[in-house]
Amino acid sequence: MNYKMMFKVLGYILLIIALTMIPPLVIALITGEGDFPAFLISSIITGVCGAALTRIPTKKNIIKVKEGLAIVTLGWLFASVFGALPFYLSGSIPSFVDALFETVSGFTTTGATIIKDIEVLPKGILFWRSFSHWIGGMGILVVAVAVLPLIGSGGFHIFKAESPGPVADKIVPRIKDTAKILYVTYIVITLTEFVLLMFGGMTPFEAIVHTFGTLGTGGFSTRNGSIGAFNNSYIFIVISIFMIMSGTNFSLYYDLFKGKWRDVIKNSELRLYLGIIFVSVLAITIDTNFSLYHNWFEAFKHSLFQTSSIITTTGYTTANYEQWSTFSQGVLFVLMFVGGSAGSTGGSIKVMRILVLIKVLKRELTKILHPRAILSVRVGGQPVADDTLLNIASFFMLYMLIFAFGSIIISLEGIGFMGATSAVAATLGNIGPGFEFVGPTQTYADFSVFSKLLLSFFMLLGRLELFTVIALLTPKFWKTEL
Amino acid sequence: MNYKMMFKVLGYILLIIALTMIPPLVIALITGEGDFPAFLISSIITGVCGAALTRIPTKKNIIKVKEGLAIVTLGWLFASVFGALPFYLSGSIPSFVDALFETVSGFTTTGATIIKDIEVLPKGILFWRSFSHWIGGMGILVVAVAVLPLIGSGGFHIFKAESPGPVADKIVPRIKDTAKILYVTYIVITLTEFVLLMFGGMTPFEAIVHTFGTLGTGGFSTRNGSIGAFNNSYIFIVISIFMIMSGTNFSLYYDLFKGKWRDVIKNSELRLYLGIIFVSVLAITIDTNFSLYHNWFEAFKHSLFQTSSIITTTGYTTANYEQWSTFSQGVLFVLMFVGGSAGSTGGSIKVMRILVLIKVLKRELTKILHPRAILSVRVGGQPVADDTLLNIASFFMLYMLIFAFGSIIISLEGIGFMGATSAVAATLGNIGPGFEFVGPTQTYADFSVFSKLLLSFFMLLGRLELFTVIALLTPKFWKTEL
Repeated sequence: MNYKMMFKVLGYILLIIALTMIPPLVIALITGEGDFPAFLISSIITGVCGAALTRIPTKKNIIKVKEGLAIVTLGWLFASVFGALPFYLSGSIPSFVDALFETVSGFTTTGATIIKDIEVLPKGILFWRSFSHWIGGMGILVVAVAVLPLIGSGGFHIFKAESPGPVADKIVPRIKDTAKILYVTYIVITLTEFVLLMFGGMTPFEAIVHTFGTLGTGGFSTRNGSIGAFNNSYIFIVISIFMIMSGTNFSLYYDLFKGKWRDVIKNSELRLYLGIIFVSVLAITIDTNFSLYHNWFEAFKHSLFQTSSIITTTGYTTANYEQWSTFSQGVLFVLMFVGGSAGSTGGSIKVMRILVLIKVLKRELTKILHPRAILSVRVGGQPVADDTLLNIASFFMLYMLIFAFGSIIISLEGIGFMGATSAVAATLGNIGPGFEFVGPTQTYADFSVFSKLLLSFFMLLGRLELFTVIALLTPKFWKTEL
Repeated sequence: MNYKMMFKVLGYILLIIALTMIPPLVIALITGEGDFPAFLISSIITGVCGAALTRIPTKKNIIKVKEGLAIVTLGWLFASVFGALPFYLSGSIPSFVDALFETVSGFTTTGATIIKDIEVLPKGILFWRSFSHWIGGMGILVVAVAVLPLIGSGGFHIFKAESPGPVADKIVPRIKDTAKILYVTYIVITLTEFVLLMFGGMTPFEAIVHTFGTLGTGGFSTRNGSIGAFNNSYIFIVISIFMIMSGTNFSLYYDLFKGKWRDVIKNSELRLYLGIIFVSVLAITIDTNFSLYHNWFEAFKHSLFQTSSIITTTGYTTANYEQWSTFSQGVLFVLMFVGGSAGSTGGSIKVMRILVLIKVLKRELTKILHPRAILSVRVGGQPVADDTLLNIASFFMLYMLIFAFGSIIISLEGIGFMGATSAVAATLGNIGPGFEFVGPTQTYADFSVFSKLLLSFFMLLGRLELFTVIALLTPKFWKTEL
């Protein structure tokens, strides 16, 4: 293990985090709500620590698999610890564990909060909270990969470990160019939503904060009532559409830009993703119209919003969906395990994996009748190796295993089943709100310190797609010399 | 598809079912509680229908994969429909759908009941109810395989499709001999438990009924309060031990009989099975001692009983476990997805599959560090092919898929989350009681006709291990000519 190189790269990551504190610092300076010193001190501490680490002398600038994995996990941990400083130093969140929870929730684009009244917070803090969604959505390290010549070819290990979804597609041959294209796409969509939300009557500040929350599929808002507080159908629908867009594989936008719209239309993951949304919205609209709203448009509006919000793992709310029937709540609960597309900012299991697993099941059914047939599972016309299929199946099983054991441990809090299970599903899937104890009108504030740390760990596990983090926790990882 | 041959074999299965109605008929005759005519008419109808079907002239006596699959699924369906006759004709269960539910629940060894007061039922009916557990536990068709020369080599397709667990081990080369060995083992254990329960003060009738319920991992009792009604620690512990024994792979008893105790001790499935029981009993004992019983022996007794009952998918109860903490209930809920060992009478996912899936996960973690390493998953020293691993993973995924969708559909009943999810888990896993709406003090009586039929379907799906039944539901099955 090349520890020196590892810490050097971590130093650069901290420098980037220090830089990302500048925009909220400027906002704090302009609004003058007392949070300016906290940002100044935080960015100085982060910058100095980062700079010190980058000074570590290294002999070989080589990043292999192990260093890549360690850099990704520790990079996210470092970013969260230093990113928590503004919350803590400004006094907005008096407990450091709470501040850490909020920051992890921000960077992992979960959107679970421990703050009961967010409307009293200074604007700089609110901006930082949502900005972390925007940064974390595309990946903290993808920036490093894009800008650091130092990392070189080791960047692929980092890119692969951090990027969401089972396949790390390089859109263009060079990984640096891929990262840049993704960021440009990201910025273009961000600006579009920002303008559209302003049209809907949001202030520029509200518009940018909610755009960050949407694009990163995060879910932090400026209002205690989340998006529902705006009570504006135009805003509901704009955000619904942009949540769905943020849960789509970003490389499809590049394809569209290149004029390859036929490829986009034929993309089987996109079809399944939109298909699941369509069926869920339809089912919930019909159910809630008859059981609660007695108004088709109201039912459709909230159904579209909550379906998009949960499947993309954003977590914004317009309706207290706990008033819905068990059926509609059940649909939402299942969507918590679907998630966005591969290569999107959405979390959870992801549509690509579900697609592959459905194809594996189909093959097994065919095999019962034709036990000796050799059938390959194909995605986008390409056969997928059994190795990859087993990896995807393993991901699914590990996800369910962590969900089950996590729920049992969290149930020691003495909360009900729904609270415990949905808290784990909502953090592991980077969603945010769940049911009952962590329902849409609740926060995570009342958990014990132990549970807050465990749930923070689940958020990181989910964002980094389980295996990377779990591998680091095995003694084998630190023993083997690679 | 050789329909003639298929119906001919189904005819023989009905003849066997008619024969199994003789013991309850004799009991009804002796006790004279008015259920004798129902058994007489039922066995005559079943016998005549069976005999008529066996008269179908067939050209080729060949059973291929497809015929095997169809015979197993339809065989269970026929057995359930005709097996429901005594309940219906005696008036014990006035609705035929309810009678069918009860019979499916019996044969599949689920033990979910729609009868609110079982203590008023005549003894013949109670005997038939529990006898169906005993028959269904080892397999309705395994009898046919053992006794019918007609089936010949096609027996393996039937044996494989009906026998629980991912691997259909032939203990001895000839499938008929394997079936016979299993039945002898089964009968020896049955007699032992029967005698031990008599020692505990049960009447011979109670002892035989509860022995059937234990051996088949079924769960039907003679008391509304299940085993708890006996309020006898000796009985609790005897039944606990026999439930655990019934959830063990029966071929291990043959190994023991042959003196191969080293093989038994080293058996990794047995170790994992007992390990899960040990950890669960320990956790629940500690938790319930402090939170409820304040008495270590009481806590241990109920913890051992409920853990054994749920993991083996029996479903007997001594305690109203809904008074337990969310933590202990959570442990039980997770155990609902574990189930007994392969080759036992227990249902659900089964320990063998869990064992294999854990090994697959371990391999994936190693692969992260050594991406190019070729590693095989070994069970009992033998490498398992990737094909088989994918089949087992597919089983797990299909199980979770049916659980999720089933729960959403059942939630249309307007019952709570816990009721809906645990009803599906308890029927699909052939367990019996669940939580809340289907908790240990409740029955399945208040479900709609639609839900009762759907839950009956889940019981059959679970007992026949998903793929067999699902394959029959695809249009492809009936189109392809094999």
